[in-house]
Amino acid sequence: MRYQASVEVRLREGIADPQGSTIENATSKLGFEGISNVRVGKSIRFTLESANEKAAHKTVQELCDRFLTNPVIEDATIIIQGIE
Amino acid sequence: MRYQASVEVRLREGIADPQGSTIENATSKLGFEGISNVRVGKSIRFTLESANEKAAHKTVQELCDRFLTNPVIEDATIIIQGIE
Repeated sequence: MRYQASVEVRLREGIADPQGSTIENATSKLGFEGISNVRVGKSIRFTLESANEKAAHKTVQELCDRFLTNPVIEDATIIIQGIE
Repeated sequence: MRYQASVEVRLREGIADPQGSTIENATSKLGFEGISNVRVGKSIRFTLESANEKAAHKTVQELCDRFLTNPVIEDATIIIQGIE
């Protein structure tokens, strides 16, 4: 069966996020008020063939551990959805 | 009121995604089968102060139009959630 996987890779809490800080500074300079805690991550989407949802989740978790994330500083949220 | 905003910035369909292609090629070299259509985007999260959810959505949409996305090649999905 085919599944749509969505992986959101985020910096762990407490890890400095220079890209987020730059955006935060830019917002106030551009006149937007009250914006804080800007964090920038990656969003990776793909389709995969798998026997079932559990196996699909396992494959994606393995992909994350092996090369989509740096587990020392990053965290991943995985969402799997079946495609007809 | 405070809101948590989540913006997913993705390349529009049909726009080449070299980063996604590189990941796709790597997966098959590493022995993962059946992975296709890899697309890499950005995920931007932040908190904002706003009068209500509609105003918060409007502010975030304006941020996207002005500098979080390049509307020629990118598309954004906005999710706003209230924080107690």
